[in-house]
Amino acid sequence: MPEVVVFAAEGRSDAQKRTLLKKITEAVVESFGVDKESVIVSIQETPKKHKSRGGVPFDER
Amino acid sequence: MPEVVVFAAEGRSDAQKRTLLKKITEAVVESFGVDKESVIVSIQETPKKHKSRGGVPFDER
Amino acid sequence: MPEVVVFAAEGRSDAQKRTLLKKITEAVVESFGVDKESVIVSIQETPKKHKSRGGVPFDER
Amino acid sequence: MPEVVVFAAEGRSDAQKRTLLKKITEAVVESFGVDKESVIVSIQETPKKHKSRGGVPFDER
Amino acid sequence: MPEVVVFAAEGRSDAQKRTLLKKITEAVVESFGVDKESVIVSIQETPKKHKSRGGVPFDER
Amino acid sequence: MPEVVVFAAEGRSDAQKRTLLKKITEAVVESFGVDKESVIVSIQETPKKHKSRGGVPFDER
Repeated sequence: MPEVVVFAAEGRSDAQKRTLLKKITEAVVESFGVDKESVIVSIQETPKKHKSRGGVPFDER
Repeated sequence: MPEVVVFAAEGRSDAQKRTLLKKITEAVVESFGVDKESVIVSIQETPKKHKSRGGVPFDER
Repeated sequence: MPEVVVFAAEGRSDAQKRTLLKKITEAVVESFGVDKESVIVSIQETPKKHKSRGGVPFDER
Repeated sequence: MPEVVVFAAEGRSDAQKRTLLKKITEAVVESFGVDKESVIVSIQETPKKHKSRGGVPFDER
Repeated sequence: MPEVVVFAAEGRSDAQKRTLLKKITEAVVESFGVDKESVIVSIQETPKKHKSRGGVPFDER
Repeated sequence: MPEVVVFAAEGRSDAQKRTLLKKITEAVVESFGVDKESVIVSIQETPKKHKSRGGVPFDER
C-alpha cells in the first residue's frame, strides 16, 4: 500500500513501461516513506481507439 | 480533467464505442462547463467471462 | 453494466453533478443500447490539493 | 451496486476466476445485505510485465 | 496482489464494512490461492447524491 | 494522458502528497516522454478503517 493504477493508451515499448514501474515506485517511496515492497503499480492499457481527448479517439488525433 | 473510466464487457462495435467517447465528452462539457480538450474518456473492456452480475459471468447469462 | 467512474476535482455544484449523472447515463444508453437501469455512474471527487496536471495541484493552478 | 473491480496479474485459470466472481458476490451480499443481482464484479487483468511490486515487474519476480 | 476496489454508496455501518474487507479477502485467498497478506481491499465510498442507477441519484431512489 | 490514480490510506501530510504528485508526474514524463501538461495524477484517499491488508483494516494493524 499504496496501489498506483496508470491508465494509458497502448503503444509504449516494454522498456518504457518497465522504467515507469520503477520510477513511480521510487516516487512513492521517496514521498510517503513507505517500504518499496508495499508499493504495487499496474499499467492498465487501452487501445487508442477506445480512449479519447476532446471526444476524439487517440487513433484519430 | 475530469477523467472518465467506463468499465464494460467486451462485445460492442468500434462504431458504438466511438459514439460513446463522443457523447460522454459532450455530457461532461455540458454539465461541468469545462473545455472539451480537458476531458479524457477511457473504455476499459473486460472479457464477458471475467465480469459478473449476481455472481454469474456475463458469458453465462 | 456498464459502470462509469468519473474522477473529478471537488468544486462543482450538486445541480451540475446531478446533470452529469443523467447525461452520462443517456450517453451510454444511446451508444450501447442498454437498459437505463443497468447503467451505474459514480463521481469520485478528489480535493483540488490532491489532484494535479503537469505536477501542479489544481488548488495552485 | 456496489461494483467491485479486481486488479490482478494475468495467469489464473478461468475456473479460478469464475470461483472468484461467485465468492466475491457472496461476500458482498452477506456483508451489505444487498440483492445478489445488484452486485457487479469485474476482473481487470494486467500482463505480469506491466505490474510490479517494489518496482520489479511480476514476470521478473 | 491482487488489489480489490469496491465502489459503494455511503451508508453502511463500520461493522458491515469490516466484515466486507474480511470476506472479500477470504474469497480471493480461496479462489486464487494467494497469501492473505498480499491481498489489499479498498472501499471507495461515494455520497448517494453523487452516484446513480438509471440516471437517478441513489438519494432520490 | 496518461492518468495516474493513487489509492492510499488517509494519514499523509499535504506536503508529502504535493511531493508525490510532482514526483509521479516526473516519472511519467521521463519514462514515456510525454508533455508534462498531459499528465493527470489523482490521490484517492480511503479512511484506514475502510482499507485492509490480509483482511485486517489498516486502523487495526
